[in-house]
Amino acid sequence: MSFLTLLTDFGLQDGYPGIMKGVIYSIAPGCRIADITHSISPQNIREGGLALSRAYRYFPDSTIHIAVVDPGVGTARRPLAMQLGRYFFVGPDNGLFTDVILEARQNGWETCFIHLNRPQYWLPNPSRVFHGRDIFAPAAAHLAAGVGLKELGDEIHDPALLPPLLPQQTAAGWKGYVVAVDHFGNLSTNILENHLAGLGRVRVQVAGRVIEGLVKTFGERPSGELVALIGTDHDLSISIVNGDARAVLGVGVGAEVTVSGDAAA
Amino acid sequence: MSFLTLLTDFGLQDGYPGIMKGVIYSIAPGCRIADITHSISPQNIREGGLALSRAYRYFPDSTIHIAVVDPGVGTARRPLAMQLGRYFFVGPDNGLFTDVILEARQNGWETCFIHLNRPQYWLPNPSRVFHGRDIFAPAAAHLAAGVGLKELGDEIHDPALLPPLLPQQTAAGWKGYVVAVDHFGNLSTNILENHLAGLGRVRVQVAGRVIEGLVKTFGERPSGELVALIGTDHDLSISIVNGDARAVLGVGVGAEVTVSGDAAA
Amino acid sequence: MSFLTLLTDFGLQDGYPGIMKGVIYSIAPGCRIADITHSISPQNIREGGLALSRAYRYFPDSTIHIAVVDPGVGTARRPLAMQLGRYFFVGPDNGLFTDVILEARQNGWETCFIHLNRPQYWLPNPSRVFHGRDIFAPAAAHLAAGVGLKELGDEIHDPALLPPLLPQQTAAGWKGYVVAVDHFGNLSTNILENHLAGLGRVRVQVAGRVIEGLVKTFGERPSGELVALIGTDHDLSISIVNGDARAVLGVGVGAEVTVSGDAAA
Repeated sequence: MSFLTLLTDFGLQDGYPGIMKGVIYSIAPGCRIADITHSISPQNIREGGLALSRAYRYFPDSTIHIAVVDPGVGTARRPLAMQLGRYFFVGPDNGLFTDVILEARQNGWETCFIHLNRPQYWLPNPSRVFHGRDIFAPAAAHLAAGVGLKELGDEIHDPALLPPLLPQQTAAGWKGYVVAVDHFGNLSTNILENHLAGLGRVRVQVAGRVIEGLVKTFGERPSGELVALIGTDHDLSISIVNGDARAVLGVGVGAEVTVSGDAAA
Repeated sequence: MSFLTLLTDFGLQDGYPGIMKGVIYSIAPGCRIADITHSISPQNIREGGLALSRAYRYFPDSTIHIAVVDPGVGTARRPLAMQLGRYFFVGPDNGLFTDVILEARQNGWETCFIHLNRPQYWLPNPSRVFHGRDIFAPAAAHLAAGVGLKELGDEIHDPALLPPLLPQQTAAGWKGYVVAVDHFGNLSTNILENHLAGLGRVRVQVAGRVIEGLVKTFGERPSGELVALIGTDHDLSISIVNGDARAVLGVGVGAEVTVSGDAAA
Repeated sequence: MSFLTLLTDFGLQDGYPGIMKGVIYSIAPGCRIADITHSISPQNIREGGLALSRAYRYFPDSTIHIAVVDPGVGTARRPLAMQLGRYFFVGPDNGLFTDVILEARQNGWETCFIHLNRPQYWLPNPSRVFHGRDIFAPAAAHLAAGVGLKELGDEIHDPALLPPLLPQQTAAGWKGYVVAVDHFGNLSTNILENHLAGLGRVRVQVAGRVIEGLVKTFGERPSGELVALIGTDHDLSISIVNGDARAVLGVGVGAEVTVSGDAAA
């Protein structure tokens, strides 16, 4: 059983993800396909990379993750397939895979990067505007159908990487920012659980508001209260209990967040 | 073949439903998963329960329905799995399953309720904020993979139930209200077809408007006309032919609807 | 392995597409189902037909495409199933299949049209308002499960067709209009690549703006520039590089687009 996932900025209106599934099933009829999301903000490579990095590890070994956020479609940017440890990834070489590549390297996983430059594994006469359909879906489907990764093209060693988005250390703790806002309005930051070790009781500041200490669950505080907690991905998160922190605070991706501790005091 | 469905308030933006599918396929790779909806209004247990009650019976016997609308995630509210007649359900014990439990009892179906308190059927180190991924998806997948319902935890007999939402009988008929508004703007009420028996020709009042009699299909009246009819779930529904009743009447969930008949006159 | 697709205007909020999947799996448990889109504008038969015509051919041979945009549900309009070459289609006889039928006839494919008038292939007691669930899904599922197309009802020869949406030839070239706007704000027109043959270098006019020549990829021009190009479906398309042409030009479906060439000069 081969599993594939799809993550794009195509939206669900036009049928583009459905078309990619048709291409995949035509080549690899026995595979199983799951959508991660098609609602990445248009052409937002950072956001796509973050969503991918939070989802991929929950799928079975050997799952092939197709990710397409591709403002440079049709230009010289390379189409890629890669193996990172137990998983495969297919998509444009534009930094979209930065987070998953860095994690693989940190973990010491084996990696292999392939330039998808063999047209026999594409649809015939690929368009210049829809490589998701014409190159990425068919290449991934051939991989699912048993073609070896290294058959799909030539090996490369320099995949595009974006600069990592680390928080900055300050005298009192850390300065970071909001990297994602979910459907409920919860704010996720680039400050991680391990950054907070040794700070003691923390004070979080965001949008002119001060939050003293972390909660472990929303249920510890009454509805409407602003809280900070460690989120599902070991990230410092900011929420309103049973409410929408984005709306109440009036901030979104990019908003500054600082953390200080009382351990040094 | 095992079938599972997903119904949540997670939205489709963040990839949470996709992550749940990854967890399920990792445990039960041979199963089939269908989305019911992920667009329940955030933390609206009533709306989630109604959508579930309208969908579950159309699936094959033994389908496992995972439903997660869970404002109390991480608190003491119990995670549950249950069998109601020919179907299984998995989700939080917060009243979300009221409608399906009441229907099962009305129909005299066998029921069994299990507190999901055995961590060997969860993901390791579950978070306090995403039990859909960490408890409900893995427990449901183990059930799909052949683990017995009673292996998943201890049997309980007091699942949480919300008060039923019945219409009130009046001198002339019934007083109810709008319980759902669909994508087309059609209003669905808690007054059901069987409430109307014996009323004769009905007069429906909503938002200061009066509708005389019921139609059987939209095609009986011209575009733009306000009509009342029996909807897909045997519910009294209010629509604009080829239009949007929510927008035209300016009302939504909770709006009062009264019905009177001429039989007694 | 049988494949089915779903294309509707039901939206993803109410669970209607999920219910159709439940009906299908109950009858044909071994089939595979893919969504094309459920976000067709409510009751917009033209838009549904266009989206279907752009997607169907990417699926495996014998795929059964269910399409439901059905303002006349419950009236005398016939429910249909049809074979067009290597594909099957199921849905209302209201013109929704115009584009795919015309393409089949142009290509000289074999066609067969069946009036779905045999209730043994429907759900029992079909409603008058949800034929997607009660007639189309079960009929398509029986087809997937091995029932012959001609078993499902009586053959007909007069499927409903809408007038084709051709551009008009002008002294200098063509006058057409925008037929679709995608998620990124790209405008797609009814002027096709083959209309432009022989025009030489083209000048495109839309919303009071003039575009000189066509580009082959977005990457040829800087961000923010208005460009015309041949889109994924051989259609003349108008885009803003890394931007949203709908928003910038302030136009949508129906907006006039003219093309002239320099070949005659």
